[in-house]
Amino acid sequence: MNIDQYMQTLGERARSASRAMSSASTGDKNAALLAIARHLEASRSALIKANASDLATAQANGLEAALLDRLELTDARIDGMLEGLEQVAALADPIGGLTDMCSRPSGIQVGKMRVPLGVIGIIYESRPNVTVEAASLCLKSGNAVILRGGSEAIQSNQAISACIQAGLAEVGLPQTAVQVVETTDREAVGQLITMPEFVDVIVPRGGKGLIERISRDARVPVIKHLDGNCHVYIDDSADEAMAISIAVNAKTQRYGTCNTAESLLVAKDVAESLLPKLAQAFESHGVELRACEESLRIISGSASSNVKLIAATEDDWYEEYLAPILAIKVVAGLDEAIEHINHYSSQHSETIVTEHHPRAMRFIREVDSSSVMINASTRFADGFEYGLGAEIGISTDKIHARGPVGLDGLTSQKYVVLGSGQIRS
Amino acid sequence: MNIDQYMQTLGERARSASRAMSSASTGDKNAALLAIARHLEASRSALIKANASDLATAQANGLEAALLDRLELTDARIDGMLEGLEQVAALADPIGGLTDMCSRPSGIQVGKMRVPLGVIGIIYESRPNVTVEAASLCLKSGNAVILRGGSEAIQSNQAISACIQAGLAEVGLPQTAVQVVETTDREAVGQLITMPEFVDVIVPRGGKGLIERISRDARVPVIKHLDGNCHVYIDDSADEAMAISIAVNAKTQRYGTCNTAESLLVAKDVAESLLPKLAQAFESHGVELRACEESLRIISGSASSNVKLIAATEDDWYEEYLAPILAIKVVAGLDEAIEHINHYSSQHSETIVTEHHPRAMRFIREVDSSSVMINASTRFADGFEYGLGAEIGISTDKIHARGPVGLDGLTSQKYVVLGSGQIRS
Repeated sequence: MNIDQYMQTLGERARSASRAMSSASTGDKNAALLAIARHLEASRSALIKANASDLATAQANGLEAALLDRLELTDARIDGMLEGLEQVAALADPIGGLTDMCSRPSGIQVGKMRVPLGVIGIIYESRPNVTVEAASLCLKSGNAVILRGGSEAIQSNQAISACIQAGLAEVGLPQTAVQVVETTDREAVGQLITMPEFVDVIVPRGGKGLIERISRDARVPVIKHLDGNCHVYIDDSADEAMAISIAVNAKTQRYGTCNTAESLLVAKDVAESLLPKLAQAFESHGVELRACEESLRIISGSASSNVKLIAATEDDWYEEYLAPILAIKVVAGLDEAIEHINHYSSQHSETIVTEHHPRAMRFIREVDSSSVMINASTRFADGFEYGLGAEIGISTDKIHARGPVGLDGLTSQKYVVLGSGQIRS
Repeated sequence: MNIDQYMQTLGERARSASRAMSSASTGDKNAALLAIARHLEASRSALIKANASDLATAQANGLEAALLDRLELTDARIDGMLEGLEQVAALADPIGGLTDMCSRPSGIQVGKMRVPLGVIGIIYESRPNVTVEAASLCLKSGNAVILRGGSEAIQSNQAISACIQAGLAEVGLPQTAVQVVETTDREAVGQLITMPEFVDVIVPRGGKGLIERISRDARVPVIKHLDGNCHVYIDDSADEAMAISIAVNAKTQRYGTCNTAESLLVAKDVAESLLPKLAQAFESHGVELRACEESLRIISGSASSNVKLIAATEDDWYEEYLAPILAIKVVAGLDEAIEHINHYSSQHSETIVTEHHPRAMRFIREVDSSSVMINASTRFADGFEYGLGAEIGISTDKIHARGPVGLDGLTSQKYVVLGSGQIRS
């Protein structure tokens, strides 16, 4: 069987399994999640052994340290997988609920029912725990899933897959509801993203390059998350202590996350008083500042001149550093801040610090990003912090799902009409 | 300027206008809709003159009668356009509303705000009234729109466009919020559907060929409506009179619409008694029946043997006739009906006629179509009948919008976080 035929076969099986999954009971889906957790628990040593084999190959291939770390399956990470399964089992079932039912003049009742999307294709790199995480969200939302992990994690993913299969079989749900692609051939991805007859949506999780390539070549819809160039705007009516606290938290609480602030905008009228204090705070965190002309002048003339400070270039306003670096710009006020953000941001998450109600309202209305915030750190832009219970990714698209994507993002709504014999006249 | 540059210019202008439109007040948007109506009213003779020129060209080019009819702009059709504008002005503004706000343990409040998609590209054929209809829905939902009508309607569309421009200008909204493509070059479409930087979603309205071509080539999301192969399933517990009434209405109330039934499934246990009566009813409407072996036997052995009756082929189960033709199949019961529909239907609209509650519930849960109905004619699958107030199309996709698409389908939701200084710990 060549790659195309192999992927078609996976696709056909997934489509068929998705029919059964769409009407699987909440009890069966939860039982399967817990059974998978039991099988993972019972297979700890097999999982760690398979993972050790992946790690050895990866090391021999010279994989860099950060990727090796992400690839590693420790006991703590397996614990995390088990907890995740229990959490997803505890979430409310999104499927089948009827909403917005209302009576129409014709006598029919019209509303919506939440239903699974069908078959989800997930393409990811390194971290083998994504295999369990993604599978659990797809199962709970009544979908079938085809998982294509990185070639460096193939042994680990197959060991995990065996546990998932065993869990599904135990409950009597189709094992083909979760299929891990067993070839490392790159053509498999090309085929997976161009089978609209078998796959309803693709969720790529990985670097910007991967996501851009998949979005370009896909023939099915893609729920994609590109970069997170997030902004903090400090208005001239901001509470000073709050402004410093939010700016520092948004930048420094974690550097490598997509909801970390990368640019700080400060209103002109408070720049002279606020920038030196901000510079001092960032200095204590070892954050390098890339400053516009105005902020460069203010900061370099201030006491905290030990901060790492260089002049920003046009490129800095676009940059997602994912590092202890922050771009700083003085803006005239709200209008310029909104204009700057709508021009340079990646439409991920932005926050305003202000005590001024109308400006706060304008900010959340006019800033065109997936999360807009008032007086809160951008670091809150996250499925768990938002109460979604789980997160398959953060969408920077506007179509279908925007912002953190939970179980609902893996579902659709169909119209339901309840009649008692009505015909159209 | 070549076509690519021309379309890029339209795109840039639309993107810029979309910013202003997204924060336009409800009052301004409604005032613009009513101003457009006044300008159309004042330009009746100019519209009819421009349309006459299109009609003359179309006749000279040998356009078929049905298309000529759709192209024609009569006084009654202009009245319809004015009414449509007033109706859209009367609809609630979908934009800006905050929903689902809830408090999180961190102290932040999280919810969603409905926002425009940005720039919509609409590609359509013949009917010039679509120009006004589509523009009005895009305006009301705070979007900018680029309209690409058929080349046969170019004069009419430009005359309508002039009225729209005048209406927008009168209210002070950007005239570039609605742009009609002024070239009939086919390359313009190719460019329109491949500018993700300027266009957020494409809505093609027209024949299946047009929609398939656009879906295949587009580099932006497409809200598409392919065909409507709708089913009526008569369960063995159906009320006989209701079953006949719904089957006849679903097939015969209008033949050319996408929510017209094309296939009738009848449960085996009631086929002997019901099919002869159904055949009689369809005979009186001059409907040709394409029958499976079993139904062929029953109907041809019955009294109403004057009905046009031929044996169905496999192709008939897939067919959208848009004509007085109906495929009929006897099925064992609910399971086979659901299986048949999920295999052959175009996932548009399907109805079950039954008095049996659990089967009705299974039908709406397990049938994977955009509208699923109990004891009602498929002809109800329509934005106006569902109470959406307007309809930009009917989506047979699952992503973003499914079923009749009203104003909400031209919007997205962003997350809003209201804090009072919260930071992430």
